[in-house]
Amino acid sequence: MFEIERIIRTALQEDIGHGDVTTLATVEKGSSARAQLVAKEDFVLAGIDVAQQVFHLLDPSVAFEKLIEDGQQVSRGEVLAWLKGDAAVLLQGERVALNLLQRMCGVATLTAQFVKAVEGTAATIVDTRKTTPGLRILEKYSVRMGGGTNHRTSLYDGVLIKENHIAAAGGIATAIRRARTQVPHTLKIEVETQTLDEVGEALEAGVDIILLDNMALETMREAVRLIDGRALAEASGGVNLKTVRGIAETGVDLISVGALTHSYRAMDISMLFQ
Amino acid sequence: MFEIERIIRTALQEDIGHGDVTTLATVEKGSSARAQLVAKEDFVLAGIDVAQQVFHLLDPSVAFEKLIEDGQQVSRGEVLAWLKGDAAVLLQGERVALNLLQRMCGVATLTAQFVKAVEGTAATIVDTRKTTPGLRILEKYSVRMGGGTNHRTSLYDGVLIKENHIAAAGGIATAIRRARTQVPHTLKIEVETQTLDEVGEALEAGVDIILLDNMALETMREAVRLIDGRALAEASGGVNLKTVRGIAETGVDLISVGALTHSYRAMDISMLFQ
Amino acid sequence: MFEIERIIRTALQEDIGHGDVTTLATVEKGSSARAQLVAKEDFVLAGIDVAQQVFHLLDPSVAFEKLIEDGQQVSRGEVLAWLKGDAAVLLQGERVALNLLQRMCGVATLTAQFVKAVEGTAATIVDTRKTTPGLRILEKYSVRMGGGTNHRTSLYDGVLIKENHIAAAGGIATAIRRARTQVPHTLKIEVETQTLDEVGEALEAGVDIILLDNMALETMREAVRLIDGRALAEASGGVNLKTVRGIAETGVDLISVGALTHSYRAMDISMLFQ
Amino acid sequence: MFEIERIIRTALQEDIGHGDVTTLATVEKGSSARAQLVAKEDFVLAGIDVAQQVFHLLDPSVAFEKLIEDGQQVSRGEVLAWLKGDAAVLLQGERVALNLLQRMCGVATLTAQFVKAVEGTAATIVDTRKTTPGLRILEKYSVRMGGGTNHRTSLYDGVLIKENHIAAAGGIATAIRRARTQVPHTLKIEVETQTLDEVGEALEAGVDIILLDNMALETMREAVRLIDGRALAEASGGVNLKTVRGIAETGVDLISVGALTHSYRAMDISMLFQ
Amino acid sequence: MFEIERIIRTALQEDIGHGDVTTLATVEKGSSARAQLVAKEDFVLAGIDVAQQVFHLLDPSVAFEKLIEDGQQVSRGEVLAWLKGDAAVLLQGERVALNLLQRMCGVATLTAQFVKAVEGTAATIVDTRKTTPGLRILEKYSVRMGGGTNHRTSLYDGVLIKENHIAAAGGIATAIRRARTQVPHTLKIEVETQTLDEVGEALEAGVDIILLDNMALETMREAVRLIDGRALAEASGGVNLKTVRGIAETGVDLISVGALTHSYRAMDISMLFQ
Amino acid sequence: MFEIERIIRTALQEDIGHGDVTTLATVEKGSSARAQLVAKEDFVLAGIDVAQQVFHLLDPSVAFEKLIEDGQQVSRGEVLAWLKGDAAVLLQGERVALNLLQRMCGVATLTAQFVKAVEGTAATIVDTRKTTPGLRILEKYSVRMGGGTNHRTSLYDGVLIKENHIAAAGGIATAIRRARTQVPHTLKIEVETQTLDEVGEALEAGVDIILLDNMALETMREAVRLIDGRALAEASGGVNLKTVRGIAETGVDLISVGALTHSYRAMDISMLFQ
Repeated sequence: MFEIERIIRTALQEDIGHGDVTTLATVEKGSSARAQLVAKEDFVLAGIDVAQQVFHLLDPSVAFEKLIEDGQQVSRGEVLAWLKGDAAVLLQGERVALNLLQRMCGVATLTAQFVKAVEGTAATIVDTRKTTPGLRILEKYSVRMGGGTNHRTSLYDGVLIKENHIAAAGGIATAIRRARTQVPHTLKIEVETQTLDEVGEALEAGVDIILLDNMALETMREAVRLIDGRALAEASGGVNLKTVRGIAETGVDLISVGALTHSYRAMDISMLFQ
Repeated sequence: MFEIERIIRTALQEDIGHGDVTTLATVEKGSSARAQLVAKEDFVLAGIDVAQQVFHLLDPSVAFEKLIEDGQQVSRGEVLAWLKGDAAVLLQGERVALNLLQRMCGVATLTAQFVKAVEGTAATIVDTRKTTPGLRILEKYSVRMGGGTNHRTSLYDGVLIKENHIAAAGGIATAIRRARTQVPHTLKIEVETQTLDEVGEALEAGVDIILLDNMALETMREAVRLIDGRALAEASGGVNLKTVRGIAETGVDLISVGALTHSYRAMDISMLFQ
Repeated sequence: MFEIERIIRTALQEDIGHGDVTTLATVEKGSSARAQLVAKEDFVLAGIDVAQQVFHLLDPSVAFEKLIEDGQQVSRGEVLAWLKGDAAVLLQGERVALNLLQRMCGVATLTAQFVKAVEGTAATIVDTRKTTPGLRILEKYSVRMGGGTNHRTSLYDGVLIKENHIAAAGGIATAIRRARTQVPHTLKIEVETQTLDEVGEALEAGVDIILLDNMALETMREAVRLIDGRALAEASGGVNLKTVRGIAETGVDLISVGALTHSYRAMDISMLFQ
Repeated sequence: MFEIERIIRTALQEDIGHGDVTTLATVEKGSSARAQLVAKEDFVLAGIDVAQQVFHLLDPSVAFEKLIEDGQQVSRGEVLAWLKGDAAVLLQGERVALNLLQRMCGVATLTAQFVKAVEGTAATIVDTRKTTPGLRILEKYSVRMGGGTNHRTSLYDGVLIKENHIAAAGGIATAIRRARTQVPHTLKIEVETQTLDEVGEALEAGVDIILLDNMALETMREAVRLIDGRALAEASGGVNLKTVRGIAETGVDLISVGALTHSYRAMDISMLFQ
Repeated sequence: MFEIERIIRTALQEDIGHGDVTTLATVEKGSSARAQLVAKEDFVLAGIDVAQQVFHLLDPSVAFEKLIEDGQQVSRGEVLAWLKGDAAVLLQGERVALNLLQRMCGVATLTAQFVKAVEGTAATIVDTRKTTPGLRILEKYSVRMGGGTNHRTSLYDGVLIKENHIAAAGGIATAIRRARTQVPHTLKIEVETQTLDEVGEALEAGVDIILLDNMALETMREAVRLIDGRALAEASGGVNLKTVRGIAETGVDLISVGALTHSYRAMDISMLFQ
Repeated sequence: MFEIERIIRTALQEDIGHGDVTTLATVEKGSSARAQLVAKEDFVLAGIDVAQQVFHLLDPSVAFEKLIEDGQQVSRGEVLAWLKGDAAVLLQGERVALNLLQRMCGVATLTAQFVKAVEGTAATIVDTRKTTPGLRILEKYSVRMGGGTNHRTSLYDGVLIKENHIAAAGGIATAIRRARTQVPHTLKIEVETQTLDEVGEALEAGVDIILLDNMALETMREAVRLIDGRALAEASGGVNLKTVRGIAETGVDLISVGALTHSYRAMDISMLFQ
């Protein structure tokens, strides 16, 4: 609920601490300034409202005119937003706003590349829990802005039975049955499989989603055939921009990509004072 | 002080929320497990104690035997640590521990590459404030583990007079003088310069550190000559693994590299249950 | 993650504030005491570990010997646990421990009555979001201890499309389709219906769970026939101990009962000093 | 001070967490809605400002027109308030607002019944510390709205010497004397008694308030005679709507009723979208 | 409840922030040290356990041997406690521990001087709400260690009707009556008076405590006679070590002294490394 | 960043807790009042904006007209500010606002006396870390308002190598070298010295600031001569209003005075209701 405010407050506290000694000493109290956020390369925008919130948490009177909406493709040189307000406030919020915005755009842009790579197939690109600690809500939002969809947010809103859970429960069928009777009926049950036998066992147990983990493309294709729409098929492991198209063409419904949130590059954005 | 605990708590709260529904349903309460953290590629280790703290915050009785110390070079296949404890706890801490550890190793490893690239020169590799919001203390620590040193942590423990401060104060000399009289005498004064004239003006005003921003190598060399040891010379802008050696050879004292903390890649590390 | 500790800390802070003036004045510092938690009526136990945690948060050295496990039926006069420790600590923790324990047992006991009432039918008793603000995690746990299962915990781990969502989306089918494409694929889609027509429309749209809201028994029976296993059927509205059996006999899969968490009575439990 | 905001924030966080997935998917961003809070049964109103604050914490621009004031008797069908604002905000705040409001009205209504039952006698109905953990401030307020008055809020703003304190201090007189010299002189001293002898001893020690715990009516009457206005007489134990009148007629000044805050029923209130 | 821990954590966070750069650079990790806390002047000890808690919050393994108890008179040169532990921890906790301990001893010592000044009279020395923001609980404790007693802790645990309350209520009698019926019966009612007429009016209204504010000694004596034990008489205003004896000899029961907590001097205490 | 708000919230929570029972009972809800803050003695103003923030945190609609700016000399009887707003709010904020304002003015006024005492010399008056736990940021600000400047804020924004660090590192030169290579290059290195030999050793090691600790005036003069502008010379120890001029005349650059923040007296300020 109050997660984004929590993130921004933590970041401002971290960056400003007991005060910006340089600005305090050099900038006249009360002087105002204008600035613009400018794209220094092409990317998909995500986080423009978060950038605004950074300045508003410092000073609600800062004027922030957003020129582009999240989810849009931006070209090098485009102005993303105009700011006007107390000069010290703009200087103090600059780094935190950019640190957040640049990373969010990075996630959205990388996601868009994966989405484009599977265009025309039935596969949906989804994220994972391999997100930056503390920033998950922003990264998952950025994935959506890039055209992907979200896997479960955390351990509480999705059931994903992995190898160790299966071992602990004593088999795929038992694990699925236990989950079925004990977790809220509002959650689907997903199980991780490595072989076609496991896929078969999971199907028989009436699972909702089958994760095909690190399977060869051929096996994956076979698994999709075997599943035949009785469960969702999700591919994971070894997914990158070179391999993703081939994976998508096996017919899987979903491809989860850790890289979306652990291997993105911060987009180049500047805040230029006028 | 309590920053690292704050980071871990936030990350656990984010990932586990009201509970790990899968583990609750499939893993017998009280069953124990053993696991190891294993390197899946070569890297410089950073964050092994943080990983331990993740599990200890969940359950102080988890045994965690660290086999390698932060700062050491690790090879693919090496075991970083052994864990033993409640199976549910190991499963619940796994993702958060890896999300932190993999990123920290990423920063340390990238830093080590830059440090190696300037070997034999007088230049020191330093970081910037372009860190991941909320994780700065861990990323700055990882830079040190990779052989770099830290620039100011935040706006409060270093004076860096940039273009906009100079404009606001009405000139380099005035800005430096104001800082000298108003900030704690325990802080050095650094000023950003774009031209040799500005370098000269800053020197005259008795500045402690001169940032040579985005200068051509030739100009930078000239600036170093001009400064002649009367201030520290720090290069920044356009620094990457290809350019860094040339920059170092101009004779600058410090090279600040934003990429260390905004362009690293998470190292591949697994937690294998035995 | 740290939710239960948060609840207990808040409760202790609320009850003790800057100090227990009576105990401070009358009880010698360092004197020890023994006490027992005793059932003053019959009920299903829930919360015994929470009671222990209350005392341990005040003082980790309090000895707390649990004699009965959560989920068990307790008879009037039975001793639930033995405590031994600093007298002031026992006196200061008493009210908070009882306030929590008595309410949790109340929820578990009421749930058990509902579960018993539908014994032999296929219906499962589930809870709702009509929980006591701040105590949801404890009340949902108590429902499980009483033999019920949990509906979605909150707005984030289950999709329940109600009348107003349908109106906003422009129809049942559209609402379901939107949810299907936008929410994590790990969540099932549930829709609220008032008429058989709506049930039909929801089925056609491929919904996972159909909420039969305040339907007459006859209509409900008809709805179950119509659904015919293609979705889960959940009854809600007007459910009490007199009506629940009839509802269960319509063949619904789930019956959600707000009363479990908003109309329970605190069970009578005493802490007796020896 | 900031207690009510703390309660509401906790409740919203608990109910909304990382987001209301249903509303996000089905309700167009920016669409507005109107709704009313309607009484579905007769009760005494308490908490209408708290309900408003729930929506205002989510979005300060929600219009909330209160039609009835706390403390008033409300009839089935009456509209308590009108709301207008962002549709998603109204849907997200609905459950938390109702969960709080329904409980607060429950406390006020039950209190009013006890107050009415002792009408014409000198007895005042007071509450206890048997409140819902985390919600005490709201429940104590609701008791006042129902016509009762508050006993001490917590262990810090009233001295109540119970059996165990007496035992620890070595007698009623010693305990009272210690309290008199050690606690702030702004607090009255109350002591719990079971027998007339204890009442006498307490009087002699100059206590301010005497709690007559679980006494037979006859004994209680005798105690009141004995006290004769030299201290306040408070009855407790076994108080319910059937016994309270008899207790009041013994002449006691105060009757404390745990049920006011541990045995109330949530009043039936709906939020109807227009 | 958790107030003292909150104070210490805040103080450590304030003093150490992201790290003690000097100690990190100069002290070998893991080296241990011994130190003692030594009195550099005579004073009454208060806060020795708080000092210990400072080090234990940093590192539970620090050994802290307390040689003197709070409330005792200490002479210049006496060792208050021995410490042994990680050298970095001792260095990092030193300033915070001393900052707290020196102030607490200051309060206790000043209080003891006032207590001594009224020895032999019936007057008790009490504190006020003029405490250091955030440290009230420690300062009130120190007053007790110095032999004083506490006035109400805050606005919630005592009724003190001042001039403005009287004006708002429309007279002393009305104000007292309103308080009597609306505040918990566990609190006494105190009223501030400036004249004998007001004292009379307050007595007639049955007030519990009468504050004689800034009265001449003669008037005060008269007031005490007038009150004649029917209420407690408390003197305030213009109290210092020169005037306090005279005030006490008027026969008042209590003398409240703001200086105890707003005009104390930090006692000189050193932490000497061995 | 959010430090001042944190201080005020803590103070209000501490003073008001669950409510101001006196005001609640005696002051009509919604009645308004006017008041002024008046100087009862001469002092240097510091904290007037903090006082305003106290009332605004309670109620943003309170009108607060500041008549004098921080840093100005105020005479007895002068009105510092006018307030108008809800009567209950003014009464509830009064004590906290005064507790903060009076202390801040105390620091500023004492600082101004030290500054005046060294007028005409080259010495600057600086503060120390001997501040009131939790209030450092306000006290350091008040020092600036009194004409002093700030030493390092905390352990993280300045290097001060003391005796124990030197011992741990194995000598002055080693300690300085270690600090030089390990702490951010934005921080100066200061070292504590007791003798001229140590001064010499520190100079040779190229230290930036030399602390002359508790030296006799003659030695100090000699040390200044020895340093000869190659480092800043800072005097500390035994500094009071009688000794400070003599110390300044030795030619030191800085004099650090613990008393500024540990021995000030709260200035007398009243809030008068009209």
